[in-house]
Amino acid sequence: MGTILWLALTIGAVWMGPPAAAVREGDVGGRTPFDYVDPFIGTGGEGHTFPGATVPWGMVQLSPETDAPSFRGGFRWCAGYQYGDTSILGFAHTHFSGTGHSDLGDVLLMPTTGPLKLDPGSKDDPDAGYRSRFSHDQESAEPGYYSVVLQDYGIKAELTATTRIGVHRYTFERGGPAHVILDLVSSIYNYDGKILWSQLRVENQTTVTGYRETRGWAPHRTVYFAIEFSKPFASYGVVNEAPEVYKGFGPPGPRFENYPDVGGRKLKAYFDFAPAPGGTIEVKVAISSVGIDGALKNLRAEVPGWDFDLVRAAAKRAWTEALSTIVVDGTTKEKRIFYTAAYHTMLAPVTYMDVDGRYRGLDGDVHRADGFTNYHIFSLWDTYRAEHPLLSITQPERDGEMIRSMLAHQQQSVHHILPIWSFGSNETWCMIGYHAVAVIADAYLKGIRNFDAEAAFEAMRASATYAPYGGLGAYMTYGYVPIDLEVEGASKTLEYAYDDWTIARMARALGKEGDYRTFMARAANFRHIYDPKTGFMRAKKTDGTFNEPFDPIYAQYGSDYTEGNAWQYTWYVPQDVQGLIDLMGGRATFVEKLDQLFVVKGDESKYKQVEDISGLIGQYAHGNEPSQHIAYLYDYAGAPWKTQARVHQIMNHLFDDTPEGISGNEDCGQMSAWYIFSSMGFYPVTPGSGQYAIGTPALPKAVIHLPTGRTFTIEARNLSPENMYIQSATLDGAPYARSYLRHEDIVKGGTLVFEMGPTPNTAWASAPEDAPYSMSAR
Amino acid sequence: MGTILWLALTIGAVWMGPPAAAVREGDVGGRTPFDYVDPFIGTGGEGHTFPGATVPWGMVQLSPETDAPSFRGGFRWCAGYQYGDTSILGFAHTHFSGTGHSDLGDVLLMPTTGPLKLDPGSKDDPDAGYRSRFSHDQESAEPGYYSVVLQDYGIKAELTATTRIGVHRYTFERGGPAHVILDLVSSIYNYDGKILWSQLRVENQTTVTGYRETRGWAPHRTVYFAIEFSKPFASYGVVNEAPEVYKGFGPPGPRFENYPDVGGRKLKAYFDFAPAPGGTIEVKVAISSVGIDGALKNLRAEVPGWDFDLVRAAAKRAWTEALSTIVVDGTTKEKRIFYTAAYHTMLAPVTYMDVDGRYRGLDGDVHRADGFTNYHIFSLWDTYRAEHPLLSITQPERDGEMIRSMLAHQQQSVHHILPIWSFGSNETWCMIGYHAVAVIADAYLKGIRNFDAEAAFEAMRASATYAPYGGLGAYMTYGYVPIDLEVEGASKTLEYAYDDWTIARMARALGKEGDYRTFMARAANFRHIYDPKTGFMRAKKTDGTFNEPFDPIYAQYGSDYTEGNAWQYTWYVPQDVQGLIDLMGGRATFVEKLDQLFVVKGDESKYKQVEDISGLIGQYAHGNEPSQHIAYLYDYAGAPWKTQARVHQIMNHLFDDTPEGISGNEDCGQMSAWYIFSSMGFYPVTPGSGQYAIGTPALPKAVIHLPTGRTFTIEARNLSPENMYIQSATLDGAPYARSYLRHEDIVKGGTLVFEMGPTPNTAWASAPEDAPYSMSAR
Repeated sequence: MGTILWLALTIGAVWMGPPAAAVREGDVGGRTPFDYVDPFIGTGGEGHTFPGATVPWGMVQLSPETDAPSFRGGFRWCAGYQYGDTSILGFAHTHFSGTGHSDLGDVLLMPTTGPLKLDPGSKDDPDAGYRSRFSHDQESAEPGYYSVVLQDYGIKAELTATTRIGVHRYTFERGGPAHVILDLVSSIYNYDGKILWSQLRVENQTTVTGYRETRGWAPHRTVYFAIEFSKPFASYGVVNEAPEVYKGFGPPGPRFENYPDVGGRKLKAYFDFAPAPGGTIEVKVAISSVGIDGALKNLRAEVPGWDFDLVRAAAKRAWTEALSTIVVDGTTKEKRIFYTAAYHTMLAPVTYMDVDGRYRGLDGDVHRADGFTNYHIFSLWDTYRAEHPLLSITQPERDGEMIRSMLAHQQQSVHHILPIWSFGSNETWCMIGYHAVAVIADAYLKGIRNFDAEAAFEAMRASATYAPYGGLGAYMTYGYVPIDLEVEGASKTLEYAYDDWTIARMARALGKEGDYRTFMARAANFRHIYDPKTGFMRAKKTDGTFNEPFDPIYAQYGSDYTEGNAWQYTWYVPQDVQGLIDLMGGRATFVEKLDQLFVVKGDESKYKQVEDISGLIGQYAHGNEPSQHIAYLYDYAGAPWKTQARVHQIMNHLFDDTPEGISGNEDCGQMSAWYIFSSMGFYPVTPGSGQYAIGTPALPKAVIHLPTGRTFTIEARNLSPENMYIQSATLDGAPYARSYLRHEDIVKGGTLVFEMGPTPNTAWASAPEDAPYSMSAR
Repeated sequence: MGTILWLALTIGAVWMGPPAAAVREGDVGGRTPFDYVDPFIGTGGEGHTFPGATVPWGMVQLSPETDAPSFRGGFRWCAGYQYGDTSILGFAHTHFSGTGHSDLGDVLLMPTTGPLKLDPGSKDDPDAGYRSRFSHDQESAEPGYYSVVLQDYGIKAELTATTRIGVHRYTFERGGPAHVILDLVSSIYNYDGKILWSQLRVENQTTVTGYRETRGWAPHRTVYFAIEFSKPFASYGVVNEAPEVYKGFGPPGPRFENYPDVGGRKLKAYFDFAPAPGGTIEVKVAISSVGIDGALKNLRAEVPGWDFDLVRAAAKRAWTEALSTIVVDGTTKEKRIFYTAAYHTMLAPVTYMDVDGRYRGLDGDVHRADGFTNYHIFSLWDTYRAEHPLLSITQPERDGEMIRSMLAHQQQSVHHILPIWSFGSNETWCMIGYHAVAVIADAYLKGIRNFDAEAAFEAMRASATYAPYGGLGAYMTYGYVPIDLEVEGASKTLEYAYDDWTIARMARALGKEGDYRTFMARAANFRHIYDPKTGFMRAKKTDGTFNEPFDPIYAQYGSDYTEGNAWQYTWYVPQDVQGLIDLMGGRATFVEKLDQLFVVKGDESKYKQVEDISGLIGQYAHGNEPSQHIAYLYDYAGAPWKTQARVHQIMNHLFDDTPEGISGNEDCGQMSAWYIFSSMGFYPVTPGSGQYAIGTPALPKAVIHLPTGRTFTIEARNLSPENMYIQSATLDGAPYARSYLRHEDIVKGGTLVFEMGPTPNTAWASAPEDAPYSMSAR
């Protein structure tokens, strides 16, 4: 739906209050899911979420920055904001939600009063620059809206957004001479040289356009913008802090006023106003990857006039509807965690095209998304695990459009492979694997069909056979990634083997038996690196020997494992847990080793160099993805009650409704999708299998409103903090004693009821035939 | 006409030999105008022309570089090539023809053999790098074709072109391991930091695409390219000489092989071949301002297959036709000078759009030229004088399309003004005045109608009233440009006043009487800066006093005058020479002062700091534009024989058919258009007046083939080196005794006959009513 239409449709609804269809099940007192979302959850610690304003899947994510960190040492500020900080330097329009690497923070605006300052100052000395102190007492956030009082200036700043526009409202409590600073130097993960070029055009006394080109995590990215002020500025100026070697002819030196056209490497502009006390200025900022014309088109299409409250109301309406897809019962705290998690699953991937469908592709050219919404920010090493499986239930069409976006990327790639970790028309090559194949296979096998399956399969095969990528050539030769040829060979072997299994599954569904056999053979490659002597998956060299020295605790970037150690990675055989059980000597030793994982302690100095390893229970690290399926593995070994206990523990100890409530990087929805699944009682250990391993529900009731109009309800009877164990279950009234749920049972609608109790029912779902899918067992 | 069509049509013609229509009057022995063109004329000294291959108005101008000079101290290498140099570093695809400031030199290719070198080396030590020695004995050039033997490598390199493609053919005499180097660092007027970013994609073993972004004379310019090799390269590699602070993830370090996708600030790539002795490799390079898709489209549209000779033949056909517009009699030397001049008038402005009409506009956005060819490289301070007036006769439709291009620029400009000195989607603000208005008025008043006259007039008025530009605000307040507010106030006052007069003329033609009066008043502003005491035009201060100290010889950048001194600039009142005569005290003192100009000597150190002041006769500097109309001013004072003598002297002493044959910067066709007009016997002293002042013919016969199919013939009877004086004249058989020719008399067709003799006929055309137009005299 076009956004003008969307705005028009939703505005009417807002005037009348949210309709019943949007909020399918209300609370006592009329509180909707929207009301429970707290965007501050995850903004402390290492959650790396941001509290600012955005709409679901919005291209603009407008949020305050409390630091503009260097790319060396800015890990905590990946999203620009840390809850513990006490000053704000401005509001930028692009952010990552929850990542462990960063970039963005584009088009930073900051309103000030008094003497003009163009340096942001520092956290230690905010008075040295334009940044302002603030207090959480005078700060609030809800989906699509953020406000804060900038204490140094007496300015109340409010933010809201549409898909492609950030809308600001500044109220100058004291009035007086005021400035709006546009800092085109400020950037997340900045360094001297990151800004390749920027350009600024003052089109008239209310409109400013331009762009900024950066070389950061994205090797080369340009953000075009169009800014409109609700009131004409009296005057303006620009400072270029990067001395130009080549001055050429004509105007601009390092600082100049009221000259409308300037380019440079370090531009900062200011726009002067004289608001009366209590006076307001609104600002709209549209962005585009295509050009200034694209940004202007977005600006004019999405918000034609000036009504901050109307835009905010439309954003609220959109979020209210989006958040009501799964409606749950629970305590206020549980709902705050759950709905905030739901909120976080809709902040990535995000829309990446202009209102006319144009976007800049991976090849640098401008393309038009024909018949689909193009998305970017594909954190696939994370999101193939639970984020995309969640979408496959709640928003299958959108999941398919994300796949179309990935296929467009593949077609534009000179490598002809699917995205690894991509955003902003760039491949970053971050993390490992080719997990786009798992997203596609999972979606296809679940019946999602709004993409070209044959083209998708070719893209999957091309991605899995591209020799130059990540040791794939050697992997195909040796059956594992030899560590003497390629770093992190152990992790790569394991993840490639899983990805290969998803390709095999898709091949079989498409009737490609040759490909099926080829990739099923590759799916067994995990066997090549299991060391029966130590009982761990280990990196192997070209000569067939394991890499030495070996320490199952040791973790370091570029070692045998990826952001993890042997304890964490040994469990990564989601396609064949039974095969792993067999390798380890059977169910008993497997369970014993799993038990050990959650208690083993080691010298922290051996693994805490990897900042992603967090949320620890023993060596289980919930804060990072390699661990996140492990607690569910007891299901496969006939000990589902142990899964129940560990999942219960993780949900209760590693999630909270505070700013520090996320135990590690939220990772573009993955951590939150883990929680949403787990709190409902199941989790997609093996995307592509069509199954979800059952854990333990954390909520008395959850209703999934499926896009077909059907519902799937999960009830947990007799649930209490102590009653964490499943005693029995029924599906649509019939006894259910498997430790997994099938996708088709969810989408056809129905009711799953768990009877809970304080002690394990070790008989329930513990027979070998009750365990979830494993390649070896079929 | 689309270029595919053009190629198809012309190829047929070439097979059959040039048809009669193309070469309207042949020589004895069948030599055509094409055969007389020597692209080396102007490549020595300060002519700043290039010898390489291009088609008329071609976007690609593919030419050898003998130096890649710094922007500090590279004046002689503005076009990349100096005839006196002995080594070549490669072949680049964009050049200026004859400018005094520079940039470009994009996409440099160099074929080599033997060990790979990626540094160009130096002129003193060519062996230190990939450059090669060459000899003029093994070098040749003709319009659309250039060849040279690269002696160090035994490679014969040949170049030809279509509008948007440079085509190379390398013949490896010795065979052996060979490389084609693509140097994305090399640039004309280079400096460390000029390359903002470049990108390279190896699409397959024959196709390479990419772009380069520079910050030079054009503040921010991107050239996209698509390269195709006729044979697959065996391997390739890239070196990035600018260490990347931010390495991010994934491949490329500073040097790597066979990795297809890389960006950086200093990229050099090499492609490896193994030709047999005598083997050839052809390379096609298409460029675009729009994107890689645009470059690929150009590549595929203009030259589908591989036939260097066919492309060369098509280029020859195009030039043969273009050069046959004016056909002259004369000695071989005279024809060499004349036709090479004609050739140089068609090298700027050049086409600036892709085959689909798309181009990047001044606003940075991509636009489509709707119904016209879009041009760039507008060196208007030069070309409004004679280049555009020449086009108004020979190619009025093209002149109108250039005006449409300038109007598009104006509409895309945030200043809303016409181009000053523009190229590559950039305004450089180089030189002074707003002479686009003179081009437009001249064209409109001559009946050129293929542009929107009302929009054009609005653009002219906007340009002339834009206060921030070049002291225009003060000019409008004071009636002159006060030197204490703005440098070069004397020159600016004079040039603005002339430009204003052209606006007034256009206003009257459009029935805008109010504008007519306003701009006629401004046209008289030259009077405000005439100093009767010294007899010179001088810079005046806001307090109304002249700037002191004053020395009529002194010239320096940023002084009272623009690339000139008082001696040269005092004559700049083309709109009102009679007014200037009156100011100076009448015809006699005016003539006396003019006589002085051509003999006065001064301390060279006072004016030779301005490198553009060259081609001197006294203080008359034919090498730069401010002087170029002055010899014709005797006509206005009743002494046309003195014009005849001086123009004769200038043509004979300051033009030659050698590399040093152009006495100063050729300036995008202006110097050559001066010669073409002057050698036919007349010159447009006052574009916008519809008149041409008569000088003295240098050729016994010239036939202008008008686009209407009519001809205008100029005959000089009894012409000889001594017989430089006009004794009498007839126009279409009737006696003609005016010292000017009217545009309408030319375009209706006819014959102008001069009777020449060795002594002045002081009676001919010397009465006041026989003098050319002056504002004051009407």
